[in-house]
Amino acid sequence: MSSSDLEAKKVLIVYAHQNPKSFNAAAKDIAVEVLTAQGCTVEVSDLYAMKFKASATAEDIVGELKDADNFSYADETKRAWEAGNLCPEITEEQRKLTEADLVIFQFPMYWFTVPAILKGWIDRVLTLGYAFSYEKRYSKGVFKNKKAMLSFTTGSQESMFSDNGINGDMNVTLWPLQNGILHYCGFQVLAPQIFWAPSYVSPEMRNTMLEDFRIRIYGALKEEPLAFTPLDYFDQEKGFRLKPEFSEEQAAKEYGLAVGIHLGKKLPPYNQMKG
Amino acid sequence: MSSSDLEAKKVLIVYAHQNPKSFNAAAKDIAVEVLTAQGCTVEVSDLYAMKFKASATAEDIVGELKDADNFSYADETKRAWEAGNLCPEITEEQRKLTEADLVIFQFPMYWFTVPAILKGWIDRVLTLGYAFSYEKRYSKGVFKNKKAMLSFTTGSQESMFSDNGINGDMNVTLWPLQNGILHYCGFQVLAPQIFWAPSYVSPEMRNTMLEDFRIRIYGALKEEPLAFTPLDYFDQEKGFRLKPEFSEEQAAKEYGLAVGIHLGKKLPPYNQMKG
Repeated sequence: MSSSDLEAKKVLIVYAHQNPKSFNAAAKDIAVEVLTAQGCTVEVSDLYAMKFKASATAEDIVGELKDADNFSYADETKRAWEAGNLCPEITEEQRKLTEADLVIFQFPMYWFTVPAILKGWIDRVLTLGYAFSYEKRYSKGVFKNKKAMLSFTTGSQESMFSDNGINGDMNVTLWPLQNGILHYCGFQVLAPQIFWAPSYVSPEMRNTMLEDFRIRIYGALKEEPLAFTPLDYFDQEKGFRLKPEFSEEQAAKEYGLAVGIHLGKKLPPYNQMKG
Repeated sequence: MSSSDLEAKKVLIVYAHQNPKSFNAAAKDIAVEVLTAQGCTVEVSDLYAMKFKASATAEDIVGELKDADNFSYADETKRAWEAGNLCPEITEEQRKLTEADLVIFQFPMYWFTVPAILKGWIDRVLTLGYAFSYEKRYSKGVFKNKKAMLSFTTGSQESMFSDNGINGDMNVTLWPLQNGILHYCGFQVLAPQIFWAPSYVSPEMRNTMLEDFRIRIYGALKEEPLAFTPLDYFDQEKGFRLKPEFSEEQAAKEYGLAVGIHLGKKLPPYNQMKG
């Protein structure tokens, strides 16, 4: 890839690990190095170092609330965003996100999802109005021209996250994160980068994992994203269920449309893991 | 139900809403009222009122760290728990949890999962050693004599969370929460209490929802929990995959064992929603 393809690209890495010597830190550092060398402008939100506030509270709004006595986080942050009254911490993260062409979330999986500090970034930065609205969701989402990728370590082996493993299929665990957060906001979701249980392998194997990541990140901006069902396949007037013409089209098929939108059929294999 | 069945029972409600006039607050208040009237001892952890810290940091450990220079949250909190060196906030929540027979999590669904402040309670209270270990997980989990229930509001209608709805099947969204957190720690998981989009219905309908909840909570401690696959169905020596004898037993069946452990088959209907 020539640097000219990428020189105007901006990347935001939202990074959530306490330890600058961790495997997650090493992965983040590789992404910064490779993307910067390609001519990208890379910003890192190092959430623990920033002591990023995780909880969604009234303090996120500067100045007077519309209804302090009956507080609604969604309504108040929507109003505050419109008036430029979100707190500086949120405003700055929204600035970084607005400018980014690619967002990489780098984190250790905690309890089958993101750590609380990263959930706090999601809850507080992706506010109503700014990141989504009734009209602007899913394939019509605000960030439809941006790409996003989950890059994370697990504590469990890959076999445990298979469709006959005790944790269950990783594709299922990824659905609420990738469909419900990233695709909901319109992002083109790149296949997740999963580092399977790096704590339980040799230093050599950890190095191999990181070198594989280096190669992947080099080409990441040219990857095909995961496939999701377009918003207009769903009938807004009938509770956003799949329209009859598409249901008919799917009727004879062996697999559903997606992990979540499975139509009572088998889950399409690797639906949340391969672009 | 006579009060004698319940008079020794202890209940912990982990409650995450900023607004004491909210629907979530009303649901929490009903649970307190009904369970107390039955003779239960009810404690409430009101996370926003407590300004509960959400992020997992070195400050959660009192005194010296084992390896401050190469910090591991899991290792350090395990060691601190063994030595009685977890911070008072975590120690107190663990005390409440240890005493509880039933834990109710009451929250508004944020981004297809719990709000960050509640994820913080999960990340920080359910520490390695205290809440799980390699030997004590899933059906052999630490809390196998306790029950737990997710009780939450959504912003979306029920149709959107169906298997042909745009958000995808709610059973999929619940799997990482109910299997990966609650069942992982051994809890008997009661069917979730889902309040579908209370913000979009009439005050009368909201009252009806709450009165239905009142009736449910009255009998909750006698409910059959959701079914999960026992730990010894999985081969520990072979990466915790389903043992061949159980795979064979399942081969001719139409549905998989669970949403996550679907074995490449159709998902068993209502797997995460009906006991």
